[in-house]
Amino acid sequence: MKKKNKRVNAAILIIGNEILSGRTQDKNTSFISNWLNSQCGISVNEVRIVPDIEKTIIKHLLEISKNFNYVFTTGGIGPTHDDITAKSISKAFKVKYEYHNEAFKILENYYGKSKFNEGRKKMAKMPRGSKLIYNPSSAAPGFIFKNILSLPGVPSILNSMIENCKKYLIKGSKIHSKTLNLFTVESNISKQLSSIQKKYKKFVDIGSYPFFRLGKIGVSIVSRSTSKTKLQYVNRDLIKLVKLKKIEILKI
Amino acid sequence: MKKKNKRVNAAILIIGNEILSGRTQDKNTSFISNWLNSQCGISVNEVRIVPDIEKTIIKHLLEISKNFNYVFTTGGIGPTHDDITAKSISKAFKVKYEYHNEAFKILENYYGKSKFNEGRKKMAKMPRGSKLIYNPSSAAPGFIFKNILSLPGVPSILNSMIENCKKYLIKGSKIHSKTLNLFTVESNISKQLSSIQKKYKKFVDIGSYPFFRLGKIGVSIVSRSTSKTKLQYVNRDLIKLVKLKKIEILKI
Repeated sequence: MKKKNKRVNAAILIIGNEILSGRTQDKNTSFISNWLNSQCGISVNEVRIVPDIEKTIIKHLLEISKNFNYVFTTGGIGPTHDDITAKSISKAFKVKYEYHNEAFKILENYYGKSKFNEGRKKMAKMPRGSKLIYNPSSAAPGFIFKNILSLPGVPSILNSMIENCKKYLIKGSKIHSKTLNLFTVESNISKQLSSIQKKYKKFVDIGSYPFFRLGKIGVSIVSRSTSKTKLQYVNRDLIKLVKLKKIEILKI
Repeated sequence: MKKKNKRVNAAILIIGNEILSGRTQDKNTSFISNWLNSQCGISVNEVRIVPDIEKTIIKHLLEISKNFNYVFTTGGIGPTHDDITAKSISKAFKVKYEYHNEAFKILENYYGKSKFNEGRKKMAKMPRGSKLIYNPSSAAPGFIFKNILSLPGVPSILNSMIENCKKYLIKGSKIHSKTLNLFTVESNISKQLSSIQKKYKKFVDIGSYPFFRLGKIGVSIVSRSTSKTKLQYVNRDLIKLVKLKKIEILKI
């Protein structure tokens, strides 16, 4: 029986003025995307970076949560005034923004009763009905509400939590990829590459990315598909092209 | 006479499967945003990362080009089949996608007539009415059409072109920022920080970002405003708070 090709997708909503202002470079997109791809067969199809403004966050949440299987938010779940992700999700879906009992207990235990102040308590507040995404590095949990998974913005903490998202996700067909690094310029092969892409249009995505290496210019040809067989067909055609044009391959 | 506070904003549309797949980490957002902030007084208020799919690019272009003063696109203006930015802009605004005379001449000169092949010629095609953004590193120009400025995705090339965008941009009031790095945790100051933010709500944006340095945990308090005076007021209040809580400041 032929295995059915199951496409599951996600979007990422990065919440934070510090990313928009250029002060901080986002590292979470590539991390989440790589993890979703390799561990869950889920493709990230859109990313948005938005400021810490409630009505803006709500607008984007409503738009993307209905267009994708999952939305990952990063940032805005800490203790300060500019951390408004949980409250914004509650407002967007018109549910109560309230203490999550288990999150409250986790944080109270972690800080100790005497040091469990207002800011820290805030991190236990979530949209009613949320389930926790445990945080092994700094206790404050993330949460999933509907199809939205909320994670912190600090990469090291986010990275430590990502495995705990797995149980909430439906897996898609694994996306395989194959890269061929060629010492040539894009325009030398663009015509033939275009024909190969057309031939396998339905099954394989072919991308072409210039690189500079060992003092020479090159192009990485990246093919991506849920079908290993189709990837091999594309690779066969690419190798033919490489031989025809007498292009050197960079072996890594 | 009081100088009028002029707000000019921009969005960035990053076009490229390689960013969404996690293969390549975007570096253009922070570069463009920092440059717009410091050189033009323009704030980046939204970023979207989208795949190399024509109808998707068109949808996002139409949405964001009407919501912001400027849209910067990155990626998709090279010679290969997956470079569809110029064509997508043409379709979005229903104008002809055609050779730009000057761009054609620049590229013909650069490559020489015999090596000016189909792929390379493609880089001279733009929406009718575009004006060029010159490219000192690899000749192929970017372009501005309406309020959309299209730049390549390769950071080193983009960086070399950014100054050539300046003449097309209306400048806004410069956004000043002040950072205070404190050896404390966010939740220790979150309540007071929130009061200070409320007090200066209309004039200053205060953000709080955890850091790890010299083996210690800290928080960077970043205040941003078009008014230097208001920034000083905020700083005065922050210093009061620091003294009250006996917090050590990290001098950089």
